[in-house]
Amino acid sequence: MTLPRKVRIVEMGPRDGLQNEKGEVPTAIKLELIERLGEAGLTAIEATAFVSPKWIPQMADHAEVLGRIRRRPGVAYPVLTPNLKGFEAAKAAGATEVAVFAAASEAFSRKNINCSIAESLERFRPVLESARKANIKVRGYISCVVGCPYEGAIAPQKVAEVAGALHDMGCYEISLGDTIGVGTPGRMQAMVEACARRVPAARLAGHYHDTYGQALANIYASMELGIATFDASVAGLGGCPYAKGATGNVATEDVVYMLHGLGIETGIDLDRLVDTGTWISAFLKRESSSRAGRAIQAKRTP
Amino acid sequence: MTLPRKVRIVEMGPRDGLQNEKGEVPTAIKLELIERLGEAGLTAIEATAFVSPKWIPQMADHAEVLGRIRRRPGVAYPVLTPNLKGFEAAKAAGATEVAVFAAASEAFSRKNINCSIAESLERFRPVLESARKANIKVRGYISCVVGCPYEGAIAPQKVAEVAGALHDMGCYEISLGDTIGVGTPGRMQAMVEACARRVPAARLAGHYHDTYGQALANIYASMELGIATFDASVAGLGGCPYAKGATGNVATEDVVYMLHGLGIETGIDLDRLVDTGTWISAFLKRESSSRAGRAIQAKRTP
Repeated sequence: MTLPRKVRIVEMGPRDGLQNEKGEVPTAIKLELIERLGEAGLTAIEATAFVSPKWIPQMADHAEVLGRIRRRPGVAYPVLTPNLKGFEAAKAAGATEVAVFAAASEAFSRKNINCSIAESLERFRPVLESARKANIKVRGYISCVVGCPYEGAIAPQKVAEVAGALHDMGCYEISLGDTIGVGTPGRMQAMVEACARRVPAARLAGHYHDTYGQALANIYASMELGIATFDASVAGLGGCPYAKGATGNVATEDVVYMLHGLGIETGIDLDRLVDTGTWISAFLKRESSSRAGRAIQAKRTP
Repeated sequence: MTLPRKVRIVEMGPRDGLQNEKGEVPTAIKLELIERLGEAGLTAIEATAFVSPKWIPQMADHAEVLGRIRRRPGVAYPVLTPNLKGFEAAKAAGATEVAVFAAASEAFSRKNINCSIAESLERFRPVLESARKANIKVRGYISCVVGCPYEGAIAPQKVAEVAGALHDMGCYEISLGDTIGVGTPGRMQAMVEACARRVPAARLAGHYHDTYGQALANIYASMELGIATFDASVAGLGGCPYAKGATGNVATEDVVYMLHGLGIETGIDLDRLVDTGTWISAFLKRESSSRAGRAIQAKRTP
């Protein structure tokens, strides 16, 4: 059981993070957040979502955000696209990478995107086809990979089926989302093992929420099975829409602190990342949800 | 690599937790906290410290607390005793289990208990002798097992030496404290492995602080090496005296949530434990530091 030598972090703050924040965030702040994350060494920063402002008003400025990013060489700025319409808008705005999102729970799929899992996969097929023609990479998300707020526990085999379908369709990576953060290391390993029998482990990513404080243990247990890509959100931005007062995305600072402690390379400058988390938390007038971020910041200000 | 089937939790809230809280806590509240923890199924509850009120004013009521506990069969109520004077006072107040504390860092030992590590061990010898005669069990703590706020990184061999000395002296269990919460799973495993070469793993316990969010990952990695006893504090009571705004003891709720998710028995009723964490946090007028506690509480109050 060897841990990976290098881990790639996909930063969720500007999208999955801010879309769940209550207050309005000006476009200039979003752009500064993306800029600062790039300076800190992140090589994948999900920038925005091409979703109707009716559904996610916080992302209404998606074209402006994507258009105005000062793109760094070697950094990907994926954007979320729920369907062909969103994809075409993202392409027109200059996207070079997009992400589609399915669920491993039928009930969640119906409540969240108003269709069955099978229908959602059919909806992604033309997106993947257009993307291939336009040379745009597509990442696939699966939500509720261990538990669903409506259905409860989700069978690992169900997740593996959806992961396999997304991979067969052309997604270069499948991000496995514990959307409500209920997973613990054993169930997480069972789910990852099932997926890795269907899709190469190198094409799988962990997207774990820290709602119950389990995310780092789950990341550690997933690395033991060869997973080397994880999604995280600076300062733990985002909260949890399913439980008030609970935390959402695992904080990037906490993940990077663990990885560096394990001698695993990330290419990320933790000090600059903490600066960024401190800055955006101050803007949002809330305490950072990152424990490592708070501890490092506390040591700076005696 | 098999995880333990059962894990024993040693609850730190009433002592390590409350001694680091700013405000004064009435004796009646301490007693209610201990009572509620017993009701939730905890079988080891560190109750107070027989330390001079000059050093720890929050524990000045130690004799009254220990004397008034409604003791449950099968539950241990250890108390901290720094020296023979503290031990005699604890014995007079009815203690049946005590704990002594050493450090793995010379600088921390001098700053915290004003003597070298070797001198502290000599100071414990008469405590262990008197305890044996009185049939009182003694637990040994070691602080700074991976890092020290003054010395930085601590060599695993140094920890193993102190653990061996405490074990040879008669401590029935050695609790390995990551006092400042800087450990990550790899360094933690190296430290545990060094100690387990000197003391049977069944006699070792993990006492991890969650300052950098690493505690659950460290507990998981320690269980992979056969450690099956962990210290934790309900609601993460305690904070961190070395970094303002940072968290201290790992929250018992988070640990129990992970263990139950892994199918590991604890004998603890998580719902009652969450009730207790919610209650004491409300009394202290602060948010619980337990993520699992907050998430479970949030689901109860729609």
